[in-house]
Amino acid sequence: MTTTAPPLALAPAPHPFDAAVALQPIGPHRCSGHSHPGYWNMVGPYGGITAALMLQAVLQHPDRLGEPLALTVNYAAATAEGPFEITATPVRTNRSTQHWVVTLSQPGADGMPQVGTSATVVTAIKRDTWAASDTPMPATPAAATLARADRTAAGVAWLQRYDVRPVDGDIPRQWDGATNHSRTLMWAADAPARTPCFAGLAALADVFFPRIWLKRATLVPVGTVSMTVYFHTSAAQLAENGPAHLLAQATGQEFRHGFFDHSGQLWRADGLLLATTHQIVYFKG
Amino acid sequence: MTTTAPPLALAPAPHPFDAAVALQPIGPHRCSGHSHPGYWNMVGPYGGITAALMLQAVLQHPDRLGEPLALTVNYAAATAEGPFEITATPVRTNRSTQHWVVTLSQPGADGMPQVGTSATVVTAIKRDTWAASDTPMPATPAAATLARADRTAAGVAWLQRYDVRPVDGDIPRQWDGATNHSRTLMWAADAPARTPCFAGLAALADVFFPRIWLKRATLVPVGTVSMTVYFHTSAAQLAENGPAHLLAQATGQEFRHGFFDHSGQLWRADGLLLATTHQIVYFKG
Repeated sequence: MTTTAPPLALAPAPHPFDAAVALQPIGPHRCSGHSHPGYWNMVGPYGGITAALMLQAVLQHPDRLGEPLALTVNYAAATAEGPFEITATPVRTNRSTQHWVVTLSQPGADGMPQVGTSATVVTAIKRDTWAASDTPMPATPAAATLARADRTAAGVAWLQRYDVRPVDGDIPRQWDGATNHSRTLMWAADAPARTPCFAGLAALADVFFPRIWLKRATLVPVGTVSMTVYFHTSAAQLAENGPAHLLAQATGQEFRHGFFDHSGQLWRADGLLLATTHQIVYFKG
Repeated sequence: MTTTAPPLALAPAPHPFDAAVALQPIGPHRCSGHSHPGYWNMVGPYGGITAALMLQAVLQHPDRLGEPLALTVNYAAATAEGPFEITATPVRTNRSTQHWVVTLSQPGADGMPQVGTSATVVTAIKRDTWAASDTPMPATPAAATLARADRTAAGVAWLQRYDVRPVDGDIPRQWDGATNHSRTLMWAADAPARTPCFAGLAALADVFFPRIWLKRATLVPVGTVSMTVYFHTSAAQLAENGPAHLLAQATGQEFRHGFFDHSGQLWRADGLLLATTHQIVYFKG
């Protein structure tokens, strides 16, 4: 006797983030994954999820040493819907640091693999040392006292993956060409709630809308070209945060020649600086 | 009749920077160079000259598109005195941007090439567009009114390659363990004078002494792990500067787990922001 019934769903569905960064090893230094509709942006995946994938390939590599320290992701082309491969190679392993070169490829028009994203990662054994901060968390109302921004109108999937609570410098309500300072301060957390891992923190580092939209109160086409994240947190300090909102700040620095950059920070609500981040972004106009 | 006289020096000696970044093509995507004593640091070359070399390999590649936009250099190991090879591969070329992966190698203990430095570079065609700055140059006395810092006592060669004129947050005069804010503001130029090219600007982006020395007024061993430079300037705007001093600012962000990062800027004296830069640095203690 045979049955054709589908298998029962015995386990709860994974968080969309975990589904999006799932990678299957397919050879030495190589793994494969698939684009996830839950993090889709307008013409490709959310840049933050691509950053998370590049880091995830290192995190699950059997030869990894220590925890993430630095990540640079270069967005050469939008990832197309469908499968992709990531190669993560440890090019140098020292006593306490390890250096990685990572590439994401999809077949080109000729069927040959074509690099769409490149990255470098440094992992390190993190020790307890003298510590200090010269970037204090700005004073701000608690996340619980603020409303979640409604980002449904844009019809963009990834915006629903973050619970964002603007404090200052929110996305303009009117596209009237006014000139603003380009700093945004907001609380941000995964939606549904999730305790960020390092890959989740890398994704959160790209949660800011483009600084030029705020600076010019004008919607122009944009695309991140390169993003860097420095991880000041340990895994234990991330776990202590739980799914609570992080305070996220980004400030534009220079807008010229069709590109702008920003400098940003992500703090735990108790003031601990978890990560600093920078990116340079193409803009049209 | 034979003579044993050495060849006459018919041309003036090149600037030490140009000698240090001289690279000879030795194959597709490959070139070779040699460490230069004029930019030697304590246990290896000045990190800025290594950054310049990684960029130079791209700048002189026959397939290069446009001008440098973003550079990330990961220092995996100190370059040993002697020859090295650099591989600079364009992994993706788009209509207006080009993405590079660059590695510097020297023979390891087994004689096989071992990666000592890895980098990614993005080059781009820079267009005239809408422009603005949210990082105004701090008010400061002109470079000509300030004295050049005497850095000869350290006995480190590369310190003599820069004419540095501190404005604020200079290297501590007393290593008394006092706690300071970690921001430094200073004028900096090549010595002897030289109009910076993009590679020269990359080198200048690493001209800051380690933030932790200022923060703690304590000399602890340090080493840059990763540095990123975003180039907001065009070649023409660099040429307009000539050999004049640039105003350089660096501010530490977080010091923890044996690493600290800083965020920095390099302005032309007329206030034009030429480059922004970030780095994360190992410290002992």
